[in-house]
Amino acid sequence: MLSRLHEEKVFKDPVHHSIYVQDLTVWKLINTPEFQRLRRIRQLGTSYLTFHGAEHSRFSHSLGVYEITRKVISQFERNGYSDWPQEEKLLSLCASLLHDVGHGPFSHSIEQIFGTDHEEWTCEVVLGDTEINRVLREIDDRFPDKVAAVIRKKYEKPIVVSLVSSQLDADRMDYLLRDAYFTGVNYGTFDLDRILRVLRPFQGKIVVKDSGMHAVEDYLMSRYQMYWQVYFHPVTRSSEILLRQIFRRASELLASGYAFSFMLDPIRALLSGSVTLAQYMRLDEAMVQTAFGEWAGERDELLADLCRRFLNRRLYKFAPLTGEDRGWLEDVRGEWRRIGLDPSYHMEVDKPEDSPYDVYKPGVLPDSKEKPPILLLDKREELTEISAASDIIRSIAGLHRGNDYIYYPEERVLPHAHLLSSETRARLSI
Amino acid sequence: MLSRLHEEKVFKDPVHHSIYVQDLTVWKLINTPEFQRLRRIRQLGTSYLTFHGAEHSRFSHSLGVYEITRKVISQFERNGYSDWPQEEKLLSLCASLLHDVGHGPFSHSIEQIFGTDHEEWTCEVVLGDTEINRVLREIDDRFPDKVAAVIRKKYEKPIVVSLVSSQLDADRMDYLLRDAYFTGVNYGTFDLDRILRVLRPFQGKIVVKDSGMHAVEDYLMSRYQMYWQVYFHPVTRSSEILLRQIFRRASELLASGYAFSFMLDPIRALLSGSVTLAQYMRLDEAMVQTAFGEWAGERDELLADLCRRFLNRRLYKFAPLTGEDRGWLEDVRGEWRRIGLDPSYHMEVDKPEDSPYDVYKPGVLPDSKEKPPILLLDKREELTEISAASDIIRSIAGLHRGNDYIYYPEERVLPHAHLLSSETRARLSI
Amino acid sequence: MLSRLHEEKVFKDPVHHSIYVQDLTVWKLINTPEFQRLRRIRQLGTSYLTFHGAEHSRFSHSLGVYEITRKVISQFERNGYSDWPQEEKLLSLCASLLHDVGHGPFSHSIEQIFGTDHEEWTCEVVLGDTEINRVLREIDDRFPDKVAAVIRKKYEKPIVVSLVSSQLDADRMDYLLRDAYFTGVNYGTFDLDRILRVLRPFQGKIVVKDSGMHAVEDYLMSRYQMYWQVYFHPVTRSSEILLRQIFRRASELLASGYAFSFMLDPIRALLSGSVTLAQYMRLDEAMVQTAFGEWAGERDELLADLCRRFLNRRLYKFAPLTGEDRGWLEDVRGEWRRIGLDPSYHMEVDKPEDSPYDVYKPGVLPDSKEKPPILLLDKREELTEISAASDIIRSIAGLHRGNDYIYYPEERVLPHAHLLSSETRARLSI
Amino acid sequence: MLSRLHEEKVFKDPVHHSIYVQDLTVWKLINTPEFQRLRRIRQLGTSYLTFHGAEHSRFSHSLGVYEITRKVISQFERNGYSDWPQEEKLLSLCASLLHDVGHGPFSHSIEQIFGTDHEEWTCEVVLGDTEINRVLREIDDRFPDKVAAVIRKKYEKPIVVSLVSSQLDADRMDYLLRDAYFTGVNYGTFDLDRILRVLRPFQGKIVVKDSGMHAVEDYLMSRYQMYWQVYFHPVTRSSEILLRQIFRRASELLASGYAFSFMLDPIRALLSGSVTLAQYMRLDEAMVQTAFGEWAGERDELLADLCRRFLNRRLYKFAPLTGEDRGWLEDVRGEWRRIGLDPSYHMEVDKPEDSPYDVYKPGVLPDSKEKPPILLLDKREELTEISAASDIIRSIAGLHRGNDYIYYPEERVLPHAHLLSSETRARLSI
Repeated sequence: MLSRLHEEKVFKDPVHHSIYVQDLTVWKLINTPEFQRLRRIRQLGTSYLTFHGAEHSRFSHSLGVYEITRKVISQFERNGYSDWPQEEKLLSLCASLLHDVGHGPFSHSIEQIFGTDHEEWTCEVVLGDTEINRVLREIDDRFPDKVAAVIRKKYEKPIVVSLVSSQLDADRMDYLLRDAYFTGVNYGTFDLDRILRVLRPFQGKIVVKDSGMHAVEDYLMSRYQMYWQVYFHPVTRSSEILLRQIFRRASELLASGYAFSFMLDPIRALLSGSVTLAQYMRLDEAMVQTAFGEWAGERDELLADLCRRFLNRRLYKFAPLTGEDRGWLEDVRGEWRRIGLDPSYHMEVDKPEDSPYDVYKPGVLPDSKEKPPILLLDKREELTEISAASDIIRSIAGLHRGNDYIYYPEERVLPHAHLLSSETRARLSI
Repeated sequence: MLSRLHEEKVFKDPVHHSIYVQDLTVWKLINTPEFQRLRRIRQLGTSYLTFHGAEHSRFSHSLGVYEITRKVISQFERNGYSDWPQEEKLLSLCASLLHDVGHGPFSHSIEQIFGTDHEEWTCEVVLGDTEINRVLREIDDRFPDKVAAVIRKKYEKPIVVSLVSSQLDADRMDYLLRDAYFTGVNYGTFDLDRILRVLRPFQGKIVVKDSGMHAVEDYLMSRYQMYWQVYFHPVTRSSEILLRQIFRRASELLASGYAFSFMLDPIRALLSGSVTLAQYMRLDEAMVQTAFGEWAGERDELLADLCRRFLNRRLYKFAPLTGEDRGWLEDVRGEWRRIGLDPSYHMEVDKPEDSPYDVYKPGVLPDSKEKPPILLLDKREELTEISAASDIIRSIAGLHRGNDYIYYPEERVLPHAHLLSSETRARLSI
Repeated sequence: MLSRLHEEKVFKDPVHHSIYVQDLTVWKLINTPEFQRLRRIRQLGTSYLTFHGAEHSRFSHSLGVYEITRKVISQFERNGYSDWPQEEKLLSLCASLLHDVGHGPFSHSIEQIFGTDHEEWTCEVVLGDTEINRVLREIDDRFPDKVAAVIRKKYEKPIVVSLVSSQLDADRMDYLLRDAYFTGVNYGTFDLDRILRVLRPFQGKIVVKDSGMHAVEDYLMSRYQMYWQVYFHPVTRSSEILLRQIFRRASELLASGYAFSFMLDPIRALLSGSVTLAQYMRLDEAMVQTAFGEWAGERDELLADLCRRFLNRRLYKFAPLTGEDRGWLEDVRGEWRRIGLDPSYHMEVDKPEDSPYDVYKPGVLPDSKEKPPILLLDKREELTEISAASDIIRSIAGLHRGNDYIYYPEERVLPHAHLLSSETRARLSI
Repeated sequence: MLSRLHEEKVFKDPVHHSIYVQDLTVWKLINTPEFQRLRRIRQLGTSYLTFHGAEHSRFSHSLGVYEITRKVISQFERNGYSDWPQEEKLLSLCASLLHDVGHGPFSHSIEQIFGTDHEEWTCEVVLGDTEINRVLREIDDRFPDKVAAVIRKKYEKPIVVSLVSSQLDADRMDYLLRDAYFTGVNYGTFDLDRILRVLRPFQGKIVVKDSGMHAVEDYLMSRYQMYWQVYFHPVTRSSEILLRQIFRRASELLASGYAFSFMLDPIRALLSGSVTLAQYMRLDEAMVQTAFGEWAGERDELLADLCRRFLNRRLYKFAPLTGEDRGWLEDVRGEWRRIGLDPSYHMEVDKPEDSPYDVYKPGVLPDSKEKPPILLLDKREELTEISAASDIIRSIAGLHRGNDYIYYPEERVLPHAHLLSSETRARLSI
């Protein structure tokens, strides 16, 4: 099924040093317009406004996920493990490479506003009228369906799903290392080579040889630190709030018949909730930023202000909230209106604990969308869920952290500080 | 003149670990729209199409240049060198930070096509109706002129110019390290700390303590390798050719009265050679890529094809040329026309030796725009030009390398290979 | 009190890049025979038999501790914190540099066998008839007493003690980074620069600005991993067992009047428990290894075998024990005798949980020798013990891990395996 | 011929991350006393007195050379190159692992004084009455001869010799990277992975695919910098001079019938030029340092002083010499005697240009012991000597650098400075 390239292709990669492409199908997939489009979508959304190095794209992440998968399979093949279905190599590589191809510009924010789902879009790209689909069908007519099944975690051989999507999958391993590298933080580094060496195919799952427990502990502690130091950084949350507000305002305006001085087809479709696959494939962060640049001159002052803020990085200020602040939040809405601010835009409360992220989840309910737990394999071929064996994983598995924060435009509040209640001034440290 | 921030600001940076801002003016400059715009302009232009990690922006490079300058001055101050004019610290920091603020999208390509000059644009940004100008004028009315004088290398104290612009300046030191980090190549690393420790202000120049000669050798060897491994990589040259052809074609179409289905004001101004400062400040790579995305559907098939090629990375193929190929180039133009290709677009010859780059130039003619040579300072306070002291620098100073290449659209030539002369087929290895 | 060197001395260091010596006293101390002797004592004892890179000496570690202390004080001075007693700089630097100067060869093993205490030896070196004492007395006659008081944690200004010896001191920070670097493991890396930036002198203590909590979490997680991956590695424990047995056997032989074919004065004194300072200063790991090399040919076959094992790395095998194995241990002693082995030498049980190590201890009893806890300083100048603020530190503070192990000479047991009980064979996986 | 280990053994290594042992013979060789002895011999001799991190042993280097060879062969096997004789894998691995096993303590100094040759000792270890010989003979009786033939560069298949010993061999690649890592300098890093990828077996030689020329350039520039920054550092030369003088003095004393208060058998044999293999295998740096420690108290004041200097790092001072200083050297001998110094010990002239080191030698005379040049392989299967293709390699191939230096005991000269000629004072900067 695999058709080897005459000469192996090598991508220089800062994280994995080199990325090797040996198969013609993988090479063709990388060169499709749909995959190249990932160059114009940042891996970490607005995080570059917090960590200026975080300008890397989903293109490089996708190559990295592919490379880790390739290395895992290569280890399985070298050792000749009988539990690994060798005929599924190409499927695994393709699913790894393509797993993020349905991401749109600033995906997480857009998904929250418009209810889209990048996993579903990925399947549409794989199954729809695209170059990617055509390349996959060269293998066989059912191949796109198989790739989509892996993406949807429904593929008949669960070991392939486990490889591409688990709590210790190629996706997570690549993004922790890559995001740490590009942001420049120390936290995300763990011993990838060691982990790759202790993965084993076993009875339809990818499990970890028990001697590798410490490397997995290190990986999960990295996750823990990256969540709180990078992914949930309040400055990043602040920029995401602006982004969501821009989309929300633009949708409202479009719905109300407002005449935009600048509009492009795919954006109009996005705002009105009716994007076609072809339109979605034209959407990228360049287009979104260009629209924001033009809207910065719109007559609607709210939209224009939000766009200028986003492009020029004049983010909302934030202050931590505690449980007891909930009552006060109602009061402050009134104060906001009194000083001429719109509480539905100029005051936002963000609760990271609502977030679906967990460093690690030991158990999963049947039929849930949760990813399966990490299992240790001992010499007697018995499996143990890792948090039963590791004190430290048990300790951090359930930890949640993170204050709620209130976000607001500081420079519009400050001039009216004397009109605010003393409680408000205290809570905002004004 | 310096007004210290109440609390030092720290940027996390992958190259320098941390970047420290202690001065209010610097902080304000970073937060201007004109400086934030550098986030939307890549440091290495189209190199990300060769090295996928090279997605870093001029924003992060500019911060890095500022940081190196800050460290150099801090070393001078700690050691109390009398040849360093302490009152010029803020000017040096501002000029370092702002030296690239006049770069436009894909600068080098645009400068070649439209004859613009980013240094002149930098001075316009500093002197014109901008936020940056307003922040600088808070220091004093003549401060913007001083910054512009440093940028133009005309400032009355040459030591400030030497710090910001020489053959061993903060600009070059940052970009070598940064470009190596983000591309993932090994070549650009040298011992920055060691070099920072041996720089000395001396009689109006920045010179190098002679014990640091080896570190400078290492730095110049890094430059040598980076030029030929990264900056002049033929794949990058190929993508720049596409870019220049797109701009050339769009200009031709605009001049001929062609009705574009999509056009934005700043781009129209650029194409017609009449950009205002305000328009230039709106130009960024997001806008250029968005235009290309729309033009990919233009009726003009040549423009549309070039844009699709650029966005989807279907670059021109290349083959090396030797001196004797010059005669053949004329013949191949005829062959190209015979198989329906336009030699003015579908065949480009690129000569890296035309490039102004030198790893190091020992001497400069008076009044030239060349940067002054690197001087070693010995214990008797005598200066020696470094290539007189270092065999290896003398060896590489004059080295030029690099083939000429012919670039062409391979997949449009291949079907007609049988119509080509055997010489052409041999030279292109078809 | 500080007398600056005419020219700063720089040591190249793989961990800190450069180590700067600016003060004449520090420079003289480094050049004493007692300090140079640390080059012949490994930082990690027998760990090089587990991790072959771990051949670094206490010399390089001591320089590293000095350098971190220098950086911390330099940060305090730059920021002009009034809680830092500037006059104590030299004392702090000297105490940091010298804190390990009383270590002997393979210290931990020797301390366990002979009941010596490297801290007391350090004070003897500082106060006794040594070059180090002479250099210190050049400052003033009471200066050696001050240094010894800091080493003993009794100095009148507790902030100096806190700097040199706490749960987040220069010693621990250097050894984690250095041991990780030389062993080649990933686990010991944390963001030293960040921690150095958030340390504050405050009311007689060194505390941590609360914004630095995450960096401290990372540091403590590194400690956790290093303990279990490196410091308590069972192979290292196995080599330490051999070492202790060699010393125990040689002492027994000496006490019994055995005529050694090779003996050196300082070793004889060590074995008989009556070492003078001058003898202790001659002891180093070269001498100990040379003695072992000669003893490898002794007539006493037990001693000879142990020495050959140590030098040729034929270590004892190990098997984990659980609580229920305690009864069995008695039985196995009988079996050992039956097959001709000496249970007091050929069978050793090692219990890491007896070890005094804790990743972090939140509280200390008054008058204990425990190091004080890590305190966070918030904006209102209030202090919080860090485990009260950090879930993850609270989680790992009390964690103990590590099996007990039984160690034994495998190749002497295997030929008699058929004479062992089935329980013993099962427990030893024979 | 290869007998696979039941389970692959992995050594953690700071340079290569992991070192993999898959073959039983290699595993047994590592565990012989002769190979374990390399743990007690430093890779860089006295360089640890210049770069305190350089305490790594020949043990870790030998493992590294083995690992690089293993990777090269693995690449050849993966690609199925027919020019690689697959049956020579084990021989190549054993020769790589063992190539340094004949090194003695402080080898280079001892070889200069006593005319020994570590290559010949290596062959004696391989062929003589040793554990290593016994392990090799388990393969077949002629196997030790084959290993020795490879070491002596006489093996019938030159490609095996080329792999183990050339100007781009596993030995050089490992030591550049390893010495750079442990000294902490920047200079020795090059892209090992890239080089490993472009090596090809071709007509009895290991050659380089021409696309890898730049990586080889980088490697040779690293060599160039390491020679002059690390290997020929004048402080290291100074410590080697002391070492040679100690051995010279001790030999003189032994020859003259002097009664040493401390002597060990292998050292006596070394000093008298009649070491047996068994004695040589007992010699290590621990023993040499122990002897020096004891001799520091000898009655012969010259020997005692030299030993104290070496152990306490009170090295000779040095001053550069130029060609014109040769006449003066005669005069200074007289001055030395006048102030009570012995010019044959207290004044040494060191000429690095006598050294056999070259960064790269393009051509070799037939039958010379020189290593063959590096050859580039192009697509037409033609070979080019690399300096013919690379300007920069041609430039540095012949470069020699390095002053001659005079070394002397400064503190014994200074008190008599007024008795010296003004020329001598000037040349020594006294």
